[in-house]
Amino acid sequence: MTGTGTAFGLGVGPGDPELVTLKALKILNQSPVLAYPAPEKGAAMAREIVAPHVNGGNVEIPIRMPLQADRFPVGEIYDAEARDIGGHLDEGRDVAVLCEGDPFFYGSFMYLFARLADKYPVEVVPGVSSLTACAAVLAEPLVALNDVLSVVPATLAEDELAARIEAADAVAVVKVGRHFAKLNRVLDRLGLSGRARYVERATMESQRILPLGKVNPEDVPYFSMVLVPNGNEKWREAAQ
Amino acid sequence: MTGTGTAFGLGVGPGDPELVTLKALKILNQSPVLAYPAPEKGAAMAREIVAPHVNGGNVEIPIRMPLQADRFPVGEIYDAEARDIGGHLDEGRDVAVLCEGDPFFYGSFMYLFARLADKYPVEVVPGVSSLTACAAVLAEPLVALNDVLSVVPATLAEDELAARIEAADAVAVVKVGRHFAKLNRVLDRLGLSGRARYVERATMESQRILPLGKVNPEDVPYFSMVLVPNGNEKWREAAQ
Repeated sequence: MTGTGTAFGLGVGPGDPELVTLKALKILNQSPVLAYPAPEKGAAMAREIVAPHVNGGNVEIPIRMPLQADRFPVGEIYDAEARDIGGHLDEGRDVAVLCEGDPFFYGSFMYLFARLADKYPVEVVPGVSSLTACAAVLAEPLVALNDVLSVVPATLAEDELAARIEAADAVAVVKVGRHFAKLNRVLDRLGLSGRARYVERATMESQRILPLGKVNPEDVPYFSMVLVPNGNEKWREAAQ
Repeated sequence: MTGTGTAFGLGVGPGDPELVTLKALKILNQSPVLAYPAPEKGAAMAREIVAPHVNGGNVEIPIRMPLQADRFPVGEIYDAEARDIGGHLDEGRDVAVLCEGDPFFYGSFMYLFARLADKYPVEVVPGVSSLTACAAVLAEPLVALNDVLSVVPATLAEDELAARIEAADAVAVVKVGRHFAKLNRVLDRLGLSGRARYVERATMESQRILPLGKVNPEDVPYFSMVLVPNGNEKWREAAQ
């Protein structure tokens, strides 16, 4: 009666449930199975973002990852989840894999995609990424004109982090979390601390915007970002 | 009775009307005035994206820009439009400024923002950007793990364009349009033509995905992008 189900990589946006797209909402409402990344214990952010939009009749597959994922067989976890999702697809049920922000912007969805896309129909639905959400809440144009934008993970080694930031026009530093102290030293060394802007949990109710000097390095969530706009502010002159 | 109106920089996404967010839809429905960038003649893309969501009772302000904008007094055009929008805000009417993709990702909205934000409440609503939309339709993870993503405008001079692309891990080249032939030479010189992927009008009905060799350089729209994923494909190994 039914064919194979489709797996959707569903971008659900940066945090505000209203920043879900109409397309994502439609797919949420049509998919009998929801899968989403989750911590070992406690609430899953992607699931919380769509909570106002889900009526509770779905099969749910939390993909629980240990915090120190490098010490665990991560590949085996994704293998098992892909088999579980594949079971539903084989029986004709669509599966929506909820992804914070956008599925292909540093998203763990790609590990499921690599396991599913050869065997099943997979559709990726782009979402509002934290990148532009942070610029919006900071009221700071992210990038303009001929600027090169560099998106730099704070997980890089200190010297490489410094070299990448120094070479860029405008910078968004992602994955700040427990790398804040290192990033702060780098920005200070490059004379960029005054221009850098820190945001955590952009567009969520718990959103905070702080000067770098007010950030407690012990208390920086994974969902935080530092933007360093281009200092030349060419765009302000460009249309005067 | 009414206070000052609010100007919204409203990201309406890359093209598919279903990639509008719930928040943008709500603001669209509540704003009596819509403004949007438009060519000198013909249809405005941002307005077309929201066409299925607008019932037609709005005051509309097309912001018409000459194609060869550098030859015209662009600043005067934005000054006049900001005055026009300001008149509505003074009278308590909200104005939604429609922006293709995201307002602060190479968006012309910043020129209005610079003129309005000191005098009026301005709120920026982030949208799905062409950046992640292109990755989604190509089924190509944009960036993963410790990769640095460089967003590079094709408008740069040839040598600088080459240097920026060569220094990057993963690259999204934006504003391709009439710069395609130059970009193609650069990618060829760097040995990246095989890995580069071309998309125009991602998520629109007229979307096209082509190998670089099949692109007619005389017929490349402004809304086109070339992605060059990181060749090392670290992400495929990372979770195996």
